[in-house]
Amino acid sequence: MKNVLDVVDLTLEELNDLISTASDIIDNPEKYSEKCKGKKLATLFYEPSTRTRLSFTAAMMELGGNVLGFSEASSSSAMKGESVADTAKIVSCYADIIAMRSPIEGAPLVAALNASIPVINAGDGGHCHPTQTLGDLLTIHRELGRMNEYVIGFCGDLKYGRTVHSFINAISKYKNIKIYLISPEELKIPNYVKHEVLNKNNIEYIETTNLDEAIPNLDVLYMTRIQQERFSDIDEYNRLKNSYILTIDKLTNAKNDLVIMHPLPRVNEISVKVDDDPRACYFKQALYGKYMRMALILKLLDETKNNPKKESRIDYSNVKINEYKCTNPKCISQVEQELDHIFKCVDEKNKIYRCIYCEKKA
Amino acid sequence: MKNVLDVVDLTLEELNDLISTASDIIDNPEKYSEKCKGKKLATLFYEPSTRTRLSFTAAMMELGGNVLGFSEASSSSAMKGESVADTAKIVSCYADIIAMRSPIEGAPLVAALNASIPVINAGDGGHCHPTQTLGDLLTIHRELGRMNEYVIGFCGDLKYGRTVHSFINAISKYKNIKIYLISPEELKIPNYVKHEVLNKNNIEYIETTNLDEAIPNLDVLYMTRIQQERFSDIDEYNRLKNSYILTIDKLTNAKNDLVIMHPLPRVNEISVKVDDDPRACYFKQALYGKYMRMALILKLLDETKNNPKKESRIDYSNVKINEYKCTNPKCISQVEQELDHIFKCVDEKNKIYRCIYCEKKA
Amino acid sequence: MKNVLDVVDLTLEELNDLISTASDIIDNPEKYSEKCKGKKLATLFYEPSTRTRLSFTAAMMELGGNVLGFSEASSSSAMKGESVADTAKIVSCYADIIAMRSPIEGAPLVAALNASIPVINAGDGGHCHPTQTLGDLLTIHRELGRMNEYVIGFCGDLKYGRTVHSFINAISKYKNIKIYLISPEELKIPNYVKHEVLNKNNIEYIETTNLDEAIPNLDVLYMTRIQQERFSDIDEYNRLKNSYILTIDKLTNAKNDLVIMHPLPRVNEISVKVDDDPRACYFKQALYGKYMRMALILKLLDETKNNPKKESRIDYSNVKINEYKCTNPKCISQVEQELDHIFKCVDEKNKIYRCIYCEKKA
Repeated sequence: MKNVLDVVDLTLEELNDLISTASDIIDNPEKYSEKCKGKKLATLFYEPSTRTRLSFTAAMMELGGNVLGFSEASSSSAMKGESVADTAKIVSCYADIIAMRSPIEGAPLVAALNASIPVINAGDGGHCHPTQTLGDLLTIHRELGRMNEYVIGFCGDLKYGRTVHSFINAISKYKNIKIYLISPEELKIPNYVKHEVLNKNNIEYIETTNLDEAIPNLDVLYMTRIQQERFSDIDEYNRLKNSYILTIDKLTNAKNDLVIMHPLPRVNEISVKVDDDPRACYFKQALYGKYMRMALILKLLDETKNNPKKESRIDYSNVKINEYKCTNPKCISQVEQELDHIFKCVDEKNKIYRCIYCEKKA
Repeated sequence: MKNVLDVVDLTLEELNDLISTASDIIDNPEKYSEKCKGKKLATLFYEPSTRTRLSFTAAMMELGGNVLGFSEASSSSAMKGESVADTAKIVSCYADIIAMRSPIEGAPLVAALNASIPVINAGDGGHCHPTQTLGDLLTIHRELGRMNEYVIGFCGDLKYGRTVHSFINAISKYKNIKIYLISPEELKIPNYVKHEVLNKNNIEYIETTNLDEAIPNLDVLYMTRIQQERFSDIDEYNRLKNSYILTIDKLTNAKNDLVIMHPLPRVNEISVKVDDDPRACYFKQALYGKYMRMALILKLLDETKNNPKKESRIDYSNVKINEYKCTNPKCISQVEQELDHIFKCVDEKNKIYRCIYCEKKA
Repeated sequence: MKNVLDVVDLTLEELNDLISTASDIIDNPEKYSEKCKGKKLATLFYEPSTRTRLSFTAAMMELGGNVLGFSEASSSSAMKGESVADTAKIVSCYADIIAMRSPIEGAPLVAALNASIPVINAGDGGHCHPTQTLGDLLTIHRELGRMNEYVIGFCGDLKYGRTVHSFINAISKYKNIKIYLISPEELKIPNYVKHEVLNKNNIEYIETTNLDEAIPNLDVLYMTRIQQERFSDIDEYNRLKNSYILTIDKLTNAKNDLVIMHPLPRVNEISVKVDDDPRACYFKQALYGKYMRMALILKLLDETKNNPKKESRIDYSNVKINEYKCTNPKCISQVEQELDHIFKCVDEKNKIYRCIYCEKKA
């Protein structure tokens, strides 16, 4: 583990190791308070994301390290005209580890390929946000007390919510998980998640539009926001919206030890009145996110110390270079100068190739 | 003292305790240089205020602590769509104490009601700016050498200057203060300050339009800016403006140990030539502001350590909930979701109620 | 050395001392890791310059010090309506040393004249950028291994490139330097550099338009960018541009130990393919810039400790005050309130006077 770009790159062993390190940090914070003394984290945030940036910053400070970077710069004002590759090379002169946030998909991968220090993806557009998912796993571990054998419901917009897809992907590595997928018809989970993740891993799942009916069965309830603009029919939106808002009333039939999660920020999808209920875990979830980032920083710096990161080259087996062109307008390959278009075979049988930067199909 | 939201909340004993702590920091800085080791201050600045932010930052660093936050974010880009209450809860996961600046009146109170860590109001619109006032008190203590028995002149815009109102409120807790209120007719001090503060505390005061005549009587001269846009008559402005500009000439008849103060930034209301006069104390005043912020951070963190801040609930005696609606467009109750409109009785006899967030009358 | 505002202010002895300190930091970093403990650097960046700001920040952190400041504020939002002089006085209350970047020429000089702490010019418009030049000198020392007796080529825009002029000025203090000036006719080095620097110091130089012919003779190649907008004739630009782009092919006849430099950011004037060539030193150059800034911070703080900076007055011999008016619209004397226009005699014989802030001729 030299970089953390996508949760799917991590093995079950690596996930469990991170969870166990984060847990030890929670239980023995003083043991870690000087671990990163003299080290520097660069927070390169090409778009504002205050929560994520403060979480990384707090994480590094609690390890005794320093933080530098930029926080809300458009690429034009931050690193004017400079490629992500050059920025990664220069920041390698100033820091020991990078957390990068960018609206451009694949930017952290290009940074990782060029930096001589570890790179953590702190969110690259709609593509990946691995530290959110890892913090969510830690929340399950600490609040539910087990990683296997539980019933979890995802409620809200399951179609566009990348957070949900990534989290389903991660928990599907564990055993005896049963999933309720609770959403309006228009916002059902995409077929590829069902086929490539749920069915492939033999995960039992139930699709429903009814939160009230599902809630009594759940050990974990993961709420997400439903945005009006996702609906083609505004009347349909108005008819449905309240049925997916979590209120004190809706919790009447829920289990006493239900774990309620939400990636935050919430708008109104969970009533403020629920916050005082002991089952509300969404602010603790933010806290767990910080501890998971501490574990990640520690692991990556340890790995680099033992085994300096010289080059992070691409695995050139089974790739096609400059044969296809990526058509995703948000892909880094559209804007970075002198960057090869590289597609990797992800399905030998059906000859499916995906862009290595943004995973768009060729 | 679990938060510092408004100077009027502080007792005379608390004021003196803060002044004495700040004085000890000035005299023995090395004693305090590691007091906040491992602690984090979050500077949540929803509008830019570089001087105040740097002062808080320097204060925390001189106590050996760390600082994180945002500095010039509009609420939309900093904490997109997130309520102040939720932000306060999340930042409580990342930091040990909050300094909040906001254009929305009452935002720091809402933060304090929701944070599990202490909150300092670093300025909420035209409402309060307690750390300015506290730094000004320390300036009096250090430069004049006494808190009682002196003559102070306030010069300039006394109508709109909240700094002046707040400072008059604070010094009125001490004894034998005599005040000159020096301003153009159009910018005289509001009647409520005279009635509710000066008369109520039996403070002797003299209103005048003439700085030259007042100056020889003063131990302290507190200058403020006169803004052209405050005048309905531009000719009147042009006729008057120079008489309220402090120049070397105007100081001819002043006392040798006069203490000249100004909240800064100045534009031209004090000539640059006055800076080299030993009576000019306005840059030292900025320095005292830093030491006072150090004292505040220390006191609040100490208090929290001895007596963890679990909940900062509102005192529900003598309040009316959702009976009145606040009409101040800058009040937090206009924008924060699911926030009750709460009015508190401030005058039993006349049945006067004020909004608990912005102090607007019902 | 109480401030560093312009490289020409430094003696050869001071330059060599800085290079030797920076070298010792590179070789023994742990010796310096606590040297600035408890000290604060203020990075006052009135215009964004992420690379320079991160370099200063990393430098201070590697000395064990803290950093505060602002990073992308326009003067209006950062220090609203406040003069540079007042800002310098206030920041002297919050920090131990200032690094200032400003689009206004002479702003760091005005800061230095008013601050009670040392000021480093981190770039003032097109005027000076001394820390870039000092880092470049360190690159020569470390990568070439000697400061005298070598052949250096400057390639690209030699007319407008202040980096090049400043660097030529600095290396002309050493012995037996031979210079190739490689540029299109339209972008040749200005006559005043030839007369006032090269001829005056008896530096041997050759002007040419041909990079390919010059390259085999060089020990150092300093590349700069050619901007299309500098050409009056777009056809001429298109005809020429490729001949000044450094590619792997162009390096065929270069020396094996050539040192390739570039101030960065590059756009396309050096092919990305050259980055892996061991002769490419432009990213190391960024690293050396950080070490040079560490040396500067150390030297200035040491100097201040031994000999506190009370006042940094102007040398009033041979100046004319408010006789001439500076006509440079970017000069600080155009915007700073109550600032005298001061011109200094730089050439007794020809009675040439230059503005002390921006060096514009009277």
